[in-house]
Amino acid sequence: MRELVVGVDLGGTKILAGIADTNGNILEKKRVFTPVGADPDQVLDVIINCSTELLRVCRVREQEIKGIAVATPGPLSFPEGVVRNSPNLNWERVNFKEELIRRMGQSVIVEKDTNMAVLGEYYFGRQSECGDLLYITVSTGVGGGVICAGKLYRGHGGGAGEVGHMVVEAGGVVCNCGRRGCLEALASGSAIARRLDEMVKQGQGQCILACTAAGEQPGPRELGMAARQGDKEAILLLSQVAEYLGIGIANLVNIFNPRAVILGGGMMLGLRDLLLEPVQTYVNKNVFSLNRQDLLVECTSLGDDIVLYGCVAAILMRGNENE
Amino acid sequence: MRELVVGVDLGGTKILAGIADTNGNILEKKRVFTPVGADPDQVLDVIINCSTELLRVCRVREQEIKGIAVATPGPLSFPEGVVRNSPNLNWERVNFKEELIRRMGQSVIVEKDTNMAVLGEYYFGRQSECGDLLYITVSTGVGGGVICAGKLYRGHGGGAGEVGHMVVEAGGVVCNCGRRGCLEALASGSAIARRLDEMVKQGQGQCILACTAAGEQPGPRELGMAARQGDKEAILLLSQVAEYLGIGIANLVNIFNPRAVILGGGMMLGLRDLLLEPVQTYVNKNVFSLNRQDLLVECTSLGDDIVLYGCVAAILMRGNENE
Repeated sequence: MRELVVGVDLGGTKILAGIADTNGNILEKKRVFTPVGADPDQVLDVIINCSTELLRVCRVREQEIKGIAVATPGPLSFPEGVVRNSPNLNWERVNFKEELIRRMGQSVIVEKDTNMAVLGEYYFGRQSECGDLLYITVSTGVGGGVICAGKLYRGHGGGAGEVGHMVVEAGGVVCNCGRRGCLEALASGSAIARRLDEMVKQGQGQCILACTAAGEQPGPRELGMAARQGDKEAILLLSQVAEYLGIGIANLVNIFNPRAVILGGGMMLGLRDLLLEPVQTYVNKNVFSLNRQDLLVECTSLGDDIVLYGCVAAILMRGNENE
Repeated sequence: MRELVVGVDLGGTKILAGIADTNGNILEKKRVFTPVGADPDQVLDVIINCSTELLRVCRVREQEIKGIAVATPGPLSFPEGVVRNSPNLNWERVNFKEELIRRMGQSVIVEKDTNMAVLGEYYFGRQSECGDLLYITVSTGVGGGVICAGKLYRGHGGGAGEVGHMVVEAGGVVCNCGRRGCLEALASGSAIARRLDEMVKQGQGQCILACTAAGEQPGPRELGMAARQGDKEAILLLSQVAEYLGIGIANLVNIFNPRAVILGGGMMLGLRDLLLEPVQTYVNKNVFSLNRQDLLVECTSLGDDIVLYGCVAAILMRGNENE
């Protein structure tokens, strides 16, 4: 009999659902837009409809389902599974896990998306070599997941891993969270978009603008295109972004002394050729020698599906947790 | 039969040795200066002489000794116990644990001082309520120890907890570690001494100078005296130091979501009346609501002996570790 896992990656703009076997082979995926306004009831409807359709397409019998796991944007309280003050979903307080279990009529693992991602990276990538592992996603925002001594580290109430809201430039630009100089405000997709907007308003960034489709706003993708054409403004801005990322990651390496820091997220994977090497160089130069020993700083090989892999990992690692 | 622990807190300027029972009652203490130049052989001699004298004074029989634990300044590799590039001891690479065991002729637990301190705080203070606990020492330097899910967290090679070398002001003042804008460069005893030195050279800080004994350099103690007399310059500088500490601690609360952040170290305990409340206020205003829930930010009640308490805790918790 097949043993299958249903995984759902709920994001602010899209929902990615998939069915995988316990070796991490994804049999079928489905991607839909998150309902406009992300009304919790509608979001739950979409998650359940997607899952049902996948089960139908893959002709899954009920007894083949080993588990269901759903990833949500943070903050997500643990163990209750309440989404709290989520900027991505614009939910103030939604008792997501309880409602999902009620609707599904069975047990569901719910984790913050960055926690799922680090579980995926650990279980399907680094498990044998990395008991201490950080995953950092650099996308519209910056977030993180932490594995300490082979276990997901959630902290007291589920809030651990908010590495994007580490202030690295006191008094710096205002972040979405309200503080100033957070890593996310300096080195994320939204930070780049804001910086490019300022440049364009000052008549700069012409090469980057030339890479931008009509009616679009330039962002990390267009910045990368211009940099690859040798545009000096683009190269300079990218070097600043790489330095901020390096500062943030070096801080975390000094704090956690992980075996590996794995980077993912749309922006990081899209600009990997431009960002990874300068980030690695900065980190290697700026952490204690003990913390640098054996250290890996790499991009994930799980790509955009990392959270789905994490859902499978969460189900397979279920027995290891004291939940 | 009594069960006793010998603990030694090796610092850059002093060595504190003590004998305690398993309830954490310190029976006898001895404090001596660290040998000038901190030659490793001489330091080992002093540690052994101190321990021997304490055992003699307390009339300890060999079978009463439950264990010996020694704390060293970091970085200290784990599990080897090699002190590496220690700025406080000026040791480049000393195989301290092995040599100590050879000389003592028995098993010795060796940990970084900040790790010992967090073990002490956990075991003798917060164990029942705080599985996730950060200890931060603010003294000449800034360091930290981390308890994750009830266990000391050392990271891959023993280097975890270097929270003083988290950059919080990119491009800021140069730190002893070579980076710029580390928390330690902005909010430590040495940071205050440097700032006061600059002020005095510019003809400022007269009230602080008036609090300084002839021939001495003003530092945190004199700054506190002036602030308590209402000196505006002193109050302003302390508010800046409190804000930097708040930024660093808020970063760590967003990253770890601990149940408690416990503060210690000579500077923090000496300026507790001036620093603690503004730090608490800053942190409460600047962390995610989920991470703020149930959060304690307090000073240790174990005072200057926290590392000795940690030595006792390390011996008593020995069975819980997979060493």
